Amino acid sequence: MSSSKISPLAPKTFPEMPAIDGVRLSTAAAGIKYKDRTDVLMAVFEPGTAVAGVFTRSKCPSAPVEWCRANIGGKSARALVVNSGNANAFTGRTGREAAKFTAALASKATACKPGEVFLASTGVIGEPLKADAFAGVMDGLVARAVPDAYLEAARAIMTTDTFPKVATATARLGKSTVTINGIAKGAGMIAPDMATMLSFVFTDAPVPAAVLQKVLTESVVDTFNAITVDSDTSTSDTLLAFATGTAAARGAPKITKAGDPRLKDFRNAFARILADLAEQVARDGEGARKLIEVIVEGAVSKPSARRIAMSIANSPLVKTAIAGEDANWGRVVMAVGKAGEPADRDRLSIWFGGIRVAHKGARDPGYDEAKVSAAMQAQVISVKVALGLGRGRDRVLTCDLTQDYVAINGDYRS
Amino acid sequence: MSSSKISPLAPKTFPEMPAIDGVRLSTAAAGIKYKDRTDVLMAVFEPGTAVAGVFTRSKCPSAPVEWCRANIGGKSARALVVNSGNANAFTGRTGREAAKFTAALASKATACKPGEVFLASTGVIGEPLKADAFAGVMDGLVARAVPDAYLEAARAIMTTDTFPKVATATARLGKSTVTINGIAKGAGMIAPDMATMLSFVFTDAPVPAAVLQKVLTESVVDTFNAITVDSDTSTSDTLLAFATGTAAARGAPKITKAGDPRLKDFRNAFARILADLAEQVARDGEGARKLIEVIVEGAVSKPSARRIAMSIANSPLVKTAIAGEDANWGRVVMAVGKAGEPADRDRLSIWFGGIRVAHKGARDPGYDEAKVSAAMQAQVISVKVALGLGRGRDRVLTCDLTQDYVAINGDYRS
Repeated sequence: MSSSKISPLAPKTFPEMPAIDGVRLSTAAAGIKYKDRTDVLMAVFEPGTAVAGVFTRSKCPSAPVEWCRANIGGKSARALVVNSGNANAFTGRTGREAAKFTAALASKATACKPGEVFLASTGVIGEPLKADAFAGVMDGLVARAVPDAYLEAARAIMTTDTFPKVATATARLGKSTVTINGIAKGAGMIAPDMATMLSFVFTDAPVPAAVLQKVLTESVVDTFNAITVDSDTSTSDTLLAFATGTAAARGAPKITKAGDPRLKDFRNAFARILADLAEQVARDGEGARKLIEVIVEGAVSKPSARRIAMSIANSPLVKTAIAGEDANWGRVVMAVGKAGEPADRDRLSIWFGGIRVAHKGARDPGYDEAKVSAAMQAQVISVKVALGLGRGRDRVLTCDLTQDYVAINGDYRS
Repeated sequence: MSSSKISPLAPKTFPEMPAIDGVRLSTAAAGIKYKDRTDVLMAVFEPGTAVAGVFTRSKCPSAPVEWCRANIGGKSARALVVNSGNANAFTGRTGREAAKFTAALASKATACKPGEVFLASTGVIGEPLKADAFAGVMDGLVARAVPDAYLEAARAIMTTDTFPKVATATARLGKSTVTINGIAKGAGMIAPDMATMLSFVFTDAPVPAAVLQKVLTESVVDTFNAITVDSDTSTSDTLLAFATGTAAARGAPKITKAGDPRLKDFRNAFARILADLAEQVARDGEGARKLIEVIVEGAVSKPSARRIAMSIANSPLVKTAIAGEDANWGRVVMAVGKAGEPADRDRLSIWFGGIRVAHKGARDPGYDEAKVSAAMQAQVISVKVALGLGRGRDRVLTCDLTQDYVAINGDYRS
């Protein structure tokens, strides 16, 4: 199921992940599907931890997504339980019961209300999740929870991922410094209209749930919602943010309004974390050998630029061409044309890897196949389209479509 | 470029294609791109031949598409010139001049107005088309045109197609019999919002352009617009129908209104031809080993059923699973969920190859993996989804996504 090779686009090193006061993590091997690896992550939070979330827009969401949606209004989180190997999606009433049972176990082990437990599951859809497996590990998870296990946490939630995804940043808040840590998983079934596959962000900043939700919702637009691997949207996409508020004890001001100017650095750092994790997801796209940055300029608006960029980023023909190191800009024209957005062929210019290959509706007069072919051998390929119509600009990330993607997904369940 | 292997889904035999009075065909090897094969098709029509057309909805259409759109209002056709190997798309002013030059050559050779010449090109986008190549072959094409060269015609317009696509039918019109012949090409860059890649239909029925257009537009909805190979829409999709009216000499009534009840059998036969050709295109999907029929029932409307069916048919994860003979119905749930159409997980049922695998939002109680796996080995796989919401039904055809698709498209230009 999971590929044995690490993506060539993986980061060369992992950042040192600092502890965040009020957050403790642990992992266990509950044997839900995988053998010889961890498959459960538990996070335990101090009382008073605020929570915010963004979820898949799928009309057929998983049981854990429905559980989180029902409880996010409580604004308070004490525990997070995540499993890999089984998505608990399309599992009907037994799925809802499995979610409820898991939350009950965690609430008992951490002495909180069930509604303060948040859940996420990732893996195969449609197989009943045997939540009994959690019963044997729950108390141990709570007992062993430690502040510095982010990399292990990221490993426990991997499915077809080839590397764990972590990111960390600090931000000035008043005269104090706060920390933001994030982890994510995702490699296939990645498309916009979602949060991501699964991502969890933790901070000690003293921000209430409403403010955290605002920052989260804003930050998602150009990060997790601006990546695509295969245009397929999961039933399980979940992005949760937890703010313990423990930095207040070190003098960080309590922020009550999203418009507070003191939040600026925090907002920026938060967005950077999401952008970093989202790029890592694109870099771990199933079978990916190249990271593709699609930039659209000169569209009539940013939403129009986004739709054109996504049309390019989701085109199997563009993605297979780039896999073949072929600067087939005709397919980019095709993808612009099919997006249905305003576009004037005779004003269109296209660049691959910074080299202009098409200009004003025809092949660039200075087109040099050898030079372009050389540029296509890079690991990161930028495809830029200038429409010449307006000031709308957008950027999305994707990866190439290789034979390995087909191989990985042709035999996922077995 | 073109695959040497014939699709395992190809028809075992070709139908005998009868002559149609007033239509003569010929082919030539103009050396536009390929060596040792024909790459130009010419059709010459009797005076009085009516023409109708449907074209790509791409915002960046090819020069021949623009040429046809500009001239279809004339309602009269005397010649059709089609080339393979170069799409004459995104070729700017030189592309428009190449189209004009080709039409001028054909109008001179057939003694008609340039506006009575229709054009289509298929192949690489963005490379200038050297229309000079037509000059050397045009007179010969006209001189050698014969009434019974449909299979050769279908061969001359192939690109990555692995087999020529032809279909024929007769229909009762009044007390007479009329004939409809069709040819098509297309294997990749096939998606809805288009006519098809290229398809040409010929009939001797005495129907004026307006009636022919009506029949064509209606017939496209559930045929060429209900197939997808890779969700990519070409800049060049062209479907042209030509009616010589020569059956009138044998007593067929001249039809002047699309609502004429005598047209019923003709309409049905016409739709059958398009359905046949469209299915052949799906069967020749690049790298395809399985034909997939997606049926959606119980949606709130037919358009809603269509969008859900297309979401399933375009899902790389559904298509790779079927390539791997894996009845991964969880991915079908995912594709239903991402379509954005009304769907209630707890009413959803899913069948693979006639076997119900999921029922009312969970795995079917009688699910038998061995039985389903055996069914997945068939060459034609039906995926049926019942939503249980309304009476909307639709059916689309696609093919699986294999490593060969990636291989074919990773190196198309070289």
